[in-house]
Formats: sequence, C-alpha cells, structure tokens
Amino acid sequence: MAKQERAIRTRRAILEAAGAVFDEYGYASTTISMVLERAEVTKGALYFHFPSKESLAQAVLDEQVPFGAVPPQPCKLQEIIDMTFVVAQRLLTNPLLRGSVRLTVDQATPVGVDHAGPFRQWAERLMTLMEQAREQGELLPTVEPRDTVELLVGGFAGIQLMSRALTNREDLAHRVSVLWAHILPSIAVPGLLLGLDSKADRGVRVLSSLELSES
Amino acid sequence: MAKQERAIRTRRAILEAAGAVFDEYGYASTTISMVLERAEVTKGALYFHFPSKESLAQAVLDEQVPFGAVPPQPCKLQEIIDMTFVVAQRLLTNPLLRGSVRLTVDQATPVGVDHAGPFRQWAERLMTLMEQAREQGELLPTVEPRDTVELLVGGFAGIQLMSRALTNREDLAHRVSVLWAHILPSIAVPGLLLGLDSKADRGVRVLSSLELSES
Repeated sequence: MAKQERAIRTRRAILEAAGAVFDEYGYASTTISMVLERAEVTKGALYFHFPSKESLAQAVLDEQVPFGAVPPQPCKLQEIIDMTFVVAQRLLTNPLLRGSVRLTVDQATPVGVDHAGPFRQWAERLMTLMEQAREQGELLPTVEPRDTVELLVGGFAGIQLMSRALTNREDLAHRVSVLWAHILPSIAVPGLLLGLDSKADRGVRVLSSLELSES
Repeated sequence: MAKQERAIRTRRAILEAAGAVFDEYGYASTTISMVLERAEVTKGALYFHFPSKESLAQAVLDEQVPFGAVPPQPCKLQEIIDMTFVVAQRLLTNPLLRGSVRLTVDQATPVGVDHAGPFRQWAERLMTLMEQAREQGELLPTVEPRDTVELLVGGFAGIQLMSRALTNREDLAHRVSVLWAHILPSIAVPGLLLGLDSKADRGVRVLSSLELSES
C-alpha cells in the first residue's frame, strides 16, 4: 500500500514537471531529459510510468478537465460560470494545467497524441451541466446546448490565449467576465440574470471557499 | 519600374511559401531552406527581402489583418460581422493567412517576433468600426467598445483553433454564426437585429460580390 502510494506520488511529480516543461518549451522542443531534471526522479521511474514523450503529453492532456472541479450549485448555469473562472484562476499558478492547455492549442503536437481531446472533454462535461440547466428551466427556449457549449469552450481557449499573449494572463479573469456579460443574456431566462455571479473575482472566491471546506 | 514590380512579386511569392511552411510545420520546425524550396526563388533573392527566419515570420504576421478587407457597409456592425466571415472563409484556402494565424497562436514564436501583434492590430481595426457604429446609434448604451472588440478577437482565435482541431475548419463558418447569435443581442440595438446578416454562408456571399466587382 505504501509502495502504491509512492508510485502515485512519483507519477504526479513527473506529470507536474512535464506540464511545466511543456508550458515553457512546447511539445517539439521538450525532451525527456528536461522532464527528468525537473521532476528529480530516476530515468527508470519515468519510463516505468511513461514509455515515451507522446505518452507523457497524452497524460498531461488527460489531466486538464479535472482542473474544472467546482462545488455543485443549485443553478447549473452558475456552476458552468464557476468552472470557467476557476480554470482561469488556476491557469495563473498551476504549471500542469498551463502545460496541458499549451499542448491543446499547439498545432505541433504530433498525430499520435490526441491534442483535440480536451476540447471534446470540456464540451462533454459542460453538456451534462447544460442539459441539467435546461431541465431546471434556466435556459431560453432558443438555446441549442451543443452550439452554446462549443462556443464557450472555443471562446475560452482563445480568450486565454490572447490574455497570455498581451498580459501574461493578468487580465484573464476580466476577459472571462466580459465573455459572460455578452453571452448570458442570450442563454439564461431573464429572471436568472441578476442572480448570476460573473464578476471578475468569482474564481478567487470559489477557490477560497473550496480551500476552507477542505481544511 | 518593371524591376520594382518583379521585386514585389518575388517578395509575395516568398511570403506565400513561408506562410504555407509555417502553417504546416510551425515556427520552430521551419527552416529557410524549406521556404526556399517552396518559393522557387534563389537564396540571394530570399535574403535580400528577409535577412532571417524571424524577419520572415514578422512579415507573415504583418500580412494578417489585410485579409479582413471587406466592402464598406452602411451599418458598421454588419461590416464587422462581414470581416469575421470573410477571414473564416479565406482561412479555408489561403496558406499565407493560415501560416500567419498559426504563428499568432503559437507560443513557440520567439521573443524577437511580435506574435501578439495581430491581436492588437485586429482590435485596433475593429475599434475604428465599433466607434463608427456607436456614432451611428447601432450599439446598446451598455457596450464598452474595447471589451467587446477584444472578446471578438480572442473568441474568434479560439473558435478557429477548435474548429481546426476537430474538423480541419470545415465547421468554422457555422461556429462564427453561433458566436454572433450569442453576442449580437448584447451589443446591437433591438431594431437592428433582424436586419443583420450573420448566417453561416455570409462569407461566401461577401467574397463572391467582391470577385464580381473586381472582374
């Protein structure tokens, strides 16, 4: 059991190191030895968990969607909003998430690695919530959940990219707030609008409530 | 004069070849000799126009915003809508534009090249039109033109990225149409909404009217 736990920790340390290196150098320029040096594990340990650079990249990509974990909300649109702000906030500090996002938007990620996977996984995750929102009567009748969800995922990807390019993501929370201000009136029933919280500091507040409940 | 014209053509041929190679391989993996081979020009001609890979990338980036050229419209929001559909349409066929967009979203583009330049240039271009839209009474009083414009630029960047990853951009025009359907009700005065054309085939129609007027 202790052995298994150590293996899990080693695997996580490698993933975090790989995320940081992919974030800084991109897929093409990253080498296994750069990850080894960062993770401070043996070559044997690394190859035990990840036999190739491709498998390392794939694992980093697969870690992305869990970063959207937020407390459930009675209003499902609020829960979707919360996911976007929490991911935006975590992008500021988490190298694994940053590396994963870079691999997603990086066209150089090779064919053997499913770099489009996170786009699909986010869309599936949001579809579940959007369908619950529909059942609860939160959505305008004109909403096509699939279209709206894919707009949110694609739009978010571009907004964080532009924010990274222009301000190293310092204004990302503001940009996410602007996204919601423009989109919510077209998807939420009017009675919900005033009660939804899409202010720029929403991510900070949700994260600190998460930390409180975990401590 | 003939000599100058030849120089302009050679420069353009190099740029188009460079765009295609950057699109296929990304900045890091592109070499000058790959561009030379594609452009079918002499090494001397290439270095005369572009002394380095960085200068070539910068020139490809600087060509991006002119691809947004559309016929002027009485309604300036329609003109902004047209730019997005025309760029989406041109992305399907134009390697120079595709290469330029890839360099913009590519985090590996080196520090010496202003890969964030197109984000700023698109925003400036749209700001001019958005201010005209405001003067003409097209915008709701709540619109902050800078926020809206940057949302459009960032959102478009992500939407084309997701469309490229999932369908090789085959559904890009539909995605742009979905973007407008979600955003227009928050920015345009209600009286305009029915008259604005943001159907998925808008880009094809605007481009064919351009070709007719040029022939």
